[in-house]
Amino acid sequence: MPPFDLAESDPFGPHNLPYGVFSLPGSVERSVGVRLGDHVLDAGAAARALGSPHAGLLAAPTLGPLLAAGRTVWTQVRRELREWVTSPSHRATVEPLFRPLSAVTLHLPFEVADYVDFYSSEHHARNVGAIFRPDTADTLLPNWKHLPIGYHGRSGTVVVSGTDVVRPSGQRKAPSDPAPVFGPSVRLDIEAEVGFVVGVPSRQGSPVAMSDFREHVFGLCLLNDWSARDLQAWEYVPLGPFLAKSFATSVSAWITPLEALDDARVAPPARTHALLPYLDDASAEPAGYDLRISVAINGHTVSEPPFATMYWTAAQQLAHLTVNGASLRTGDLYGSGTVSGPEPDQRGSLLELTWNGRDPLELPDGKRTFLEDGDVVTLSAWAPGPDGVPVGLGEVSGRVIAG
Amino acid sequence: MPPFDLAESDPFGPHNLPYGVFSLPGSVERSVGVRLGDHVLDAGAAARALGSPHAGLLAAPTLGPLLAAGRTVWTQVRRELREWVTSPSHRATVEPLFRPLSAVTLHLPFEVADYVDFYSSEHHARNVGAIFRPDTADTLLPNWKHLPIGYHGRSGTVVVSGTDVVRPSGQRKAPSDPAPVFGPSVRLDIEAEVGFVVGVPSRQGSPVAMSDFREHVFGLCLLNDWSARDLQAWEYVPLGPFLAKSFATSVSAWITPLEALDDARVAPPARTHALLPYLDDASAEPAGYDLRISVAINGHTVSEPPFATMYWTAAQQLAHLTVNGASLRTGDLYGSGTVSGPEPDQRGSLLELTWNGRDPLELPDGKRTFLEDGDVVTLSAWAPGPDGVPVGLGEVSGRVIAG
Repeated sequence: MPPFDLAESDPFGPHNLPYGVFSLPGSVERSVGVRLGDHVLDAGAAARALGSPHAGLLAAPTLGPLLAAGRTVWTQVRRELREWVTSPSHRATVEPLFRPLSAVTLHLPFEVADYVDFYSSEHHARNVGAIFRPDTADTLLPNWKHLPIGYHGRSGTVVVSGTDVVRPSGQRKAPSDPAPVFGPSVRLDIEAEVGFVVGVPSRQGSPVAMSDFREHVFGLCLLNDWSARDLQAWEYVPLGPFLAKSFATSVSAWITPLEALDDARVAPPARTHALLPYLDDASAEPAGYDLRISVAINGHTVSEPPFATMYWTAAQQLAHLTVNGASLRTGDLYGSGTVSGPEPDQRGSLLELTWNGRDPLELPDGKRTFLEDGDVVTLSAWAPGPDGVPVGLGEVSGRVIAG
Repeated sequence: MPPFDLAESDPFGPHNLPYGVFSLPGSVERSVGVRLGDHVLDAGAAARALGSPHAGLLAAPTLGPLLAAGRTVWTQVRRELREWVTSPSHRATVEPLFRPLSAVTLHLPFEVADYVDFYSSEHHARNVGAIFRPDTADTLLPNWKHLPIGYHGRSGTVVVSGTDVVRPSGQRKAPSDPAPVFGPSVRLDIEAEVGFVVGVPSRQGSPVAMSDFREHVFGLCLLNDWSARDLQAWEYVPLGPFLAKSFATSVSAWITPLEALDDARVAPPARTHALLPYLDDASAEPAGYDLRISVAINGHTVSEPPFATMYWTAAQQLAHLTVNGASLRTGDLYGSGTVSGPEPDQRGSLLELTWNGRDPLELPDGKRTFLEDGDVVTLSAWAPGPDGVPVGLGEVSGRVIAG
């Protein structure tokens, strides 16, 4: 059977073991699944069959109970899973509990509590500054190097990969228009991001230090922060993006545990400004992640944003978002912000890739400035793993349909 | 017994019947309660005792099931409750199910799904513009009269009245400072608002029209959007308020059903700009509410903001927040934005009341520009009801404690 006889180079081998939630055709029952190659292990059934003390956490319709259980349990469960899928003595028990990926439906794997989106790529922030404020000397705003800028988004419209995205309607107004007009967005864009999933809650009034990042954050996923640039330009002053973002945010179906990414940890870029103590990571463990993202439109790769270039790390983002005493809940999700590298073909949004529509992309099926109805956008990624074997992060995909 | 022998002028008489969630001393069990005078009826117990078909909805630890049930059921349950607390034939059954308010603990009555905050008082927006942009000719930004400006806040830090609020720490930077400094906010403020509670969900991709407001929104509460002005000034460009607001938002324990406020419906202010069709309420039923709010610091009234002066109505806010296809969930909460009237003693924030600290308030216990540790802020309100009897909206109160 394939799950036990995987190629050693398979990016979804026993070194990876991401978590998701699946159902079988004709059933409404949802189960926690663990991906191995192109198969899904029914983790709750395996835990029960093998008498695991964690069967209660895994035999659930969402990842919620596992997320809430904390780092010690996360490590124990991961160790058990690894044994189940590698030890010949368990093979006869476990093998019947695998399903081909092609035979299951994948669901949003946890209930999103609060959703926050950051803005932590310096290249992205500078590109946006150069596009929208071409006459200013510094393309970065004064606060950008002092804190990870972020805002809250709509958690109720986070959807799993594969969900169609309806083109949003709303108000837009070009500077030359006498009044705003209403209609479907004509500048629908993507933002290639990584999402971090909080497991362990924190108490209101008690900040979470950078050093406690791994005690609270379970893992990460890919995230597409769909954005209607025309709606955003008209609405965002002074309280930030609202309808331009709230219609949909897509996440990958697989949550990769941080422990699968230990070989991908890298130091973030050198800091050019002194940081306040709660954000100062000069003497901390490397908290960046070397994730290699690809952005494809209709199967054609248009960009390869390198996550290692992000200025602010997920540990800094967590420390910042709680430093005012804001509490964490199981299921909180925070996005990194658009990932853009220094090169033109490493930009994580069409806004940047086409320089606000000035330089259309040439795709096999025609030119693109922003997205057209029917376009399928797919973000995928991998990270360096042990012994040179990549860790697959799966993909987040969505098709634009007319509003 | 008091609940049955209330004065006819009691603002919490049978014409009101707001919903909350309470527990008894020494018990963790939460129950849906309905307020009558200074007492709480155990609504689930009453429903069971009287064989109501809605006992399942009311015998719950939150208002969630009732909120999700929809307008027809809301009307039926309200009619039943009214009969139970007024008909002499039910008195012997119902009277033992009342508890004095002073003997119960009130809880956050529903799980907040997404929290959105608007900015819909023209007087507030003009005051803010005049304070922060004194040199501009128009104190309103160009988009303000075309759409209800709003943003998403943190739903996980919404707390019930009576919860202490820890003064948040964070970064601030005066224009003259060479770099940001970190510490407890020195400009902690309030925003007097009204919160609207969504009951019936909507489907992603399907906007909700203004005319469907009462099919989706169950009722309203009082809301204090605590704000750290110094954190806000430094962080909010370009993505809006984040840590300045996310540490705490307080709501009243009682949710007043819209049906209790039919006598308070008023037309909103005259529209000075043509509105796009999805927001045009020229021929709609009056969708404003004549709610009279009081703001008190340590028991001393400092302002009386009139909700009837709000430019954008809750129906317009709902239509706007879904016009891009964003879905609604049971438990979504949206705030009106700071309520400020045209007069200086009708302003809903200390920012405005002290004109950014220039004109301190004289309180019996000393001057105030912004809040001091130990200050207790209480918003209370009432609305015109049937036969000239006011509808009490209760209060939302919170004490500032040192961070």
